[in-house]
Amino acid sequence: MSTSRPYHHGDLRAALLEAAGSLLDSGGENAVSLREAARMAGVSPTAAYRHFTDKEALLATLAARGFAEFGQAMAAAVGRREATPLAARGRAYIRFALANPGRFRLMFGGLLNRAAAHPVLREAASEAFAALEATAGAQSRDQALRAWGLVHGLAHLLLDGAIGEADVEAMIDRLIT
Amino acid sequence: MSTSRPYHHGDLRAALLEAAGSLLDSGGENAVSLREAARMAGVSPTAAYRHFTDKEALLATLAARGFAEFGQAMAAAVGRREATPLAARGRAYIRFALANPGRFRLMFGGLLNRAAAHPVLREAASEAFAALEATAGAQSRDQALRAWGLVHGLAHLLLDGAIGEADVEAMIDRLIT
Repeated sequence: MSTSRPYHHGDLRAALLEAAGSLLDSGGENAVSLREAARMAGVSPTAAYRHFTDKEALLATLAARGFAEFGQAMAAAVGRREATPLAARGRAYIRFALANPGRFRLMFGGLLNRAAAHPVLREAASEAFAALEATAGAQSRDQALRAWGLVHGLAHLLLDGAIGEADVEAMIDRLIT
Repeated sequence: MSTSRPYHHGDLRAALLEAAGSLLDSGGENAVSLREAARMAGVSPTAAYRHFTDKEALLATLAARGFAEFGQAMAAAVGRREATPLAARGRAYIRFALANPGRFRLMFGGLLNRAAAHPVLREAASEAFAALEATAGAQSRDQALRAWGLVHGLAHLLLDGAIGEADVEAMIDRLIT
């Protein structure tokens, strides 16, 4: 245990989140631990616990950041190509999942069921879901749910290897119209 | 370690699968271990390893059985109510997921990406997927994939608490038509 690297206030928190994010990307949720994130940031576990009460608090913050990036990726997609906003967002949704499997699984994993305990996650998720619903705009809530179900299901089936497809990009473009 | 309970050939295998299934149902994939299944069946770990080389082999067999039950549930749904076969199967798909969350997550989790190593799982999954595609019959493969994506996504969003809905059954009926 060392506290050899000096951190400005707030920087350690950012360093811990960065370390946890790379653990998540390489090995999934089970690979993340506060202790290992502390080691990577060059501080003692005790110093890390000052920023996150436990592993779940760390994961909830990572998931909340995931929702924020996810929302940005979808917003950035709108207007970029000759497609309806709904199709553009749908494609961005699936592409985000395929590019960030660990983050996507964390965001939509069991944590959401306990989101009431994590205000930062609850808020980030609600914001992302509201943006999704707003895209379906003039349509009904049921139509928005159908569109959401479709892109969410395709993302999972592709991630989990249930759909084998040589050209995934072309398939996404064909299915999301 | 005891081998106090005598098993006929094949019965121990069934007992281990039953024990593993209940571990899966109560605590998810991480709760399953060959050692604990052996303990529940009243045999030594060594005896259990004679039937399954490792935890993954045990999980692959559980997942394969899940696909078989899943196929039966969907087949049984067809013709039962005033709905197209596709809608009936779609509803059965989501209901199976909600009734068997541990099994559903296992079936469609990372194991499928390694299905080549598990012929029994590969075969059971292919059979279930072929039945799904056949339901979409006269339609195109893309339409079958869209229907699959929709029910798979709704199942996950409901399981993971992303969609909050007072009357889930009514929602499923409205969305799957």
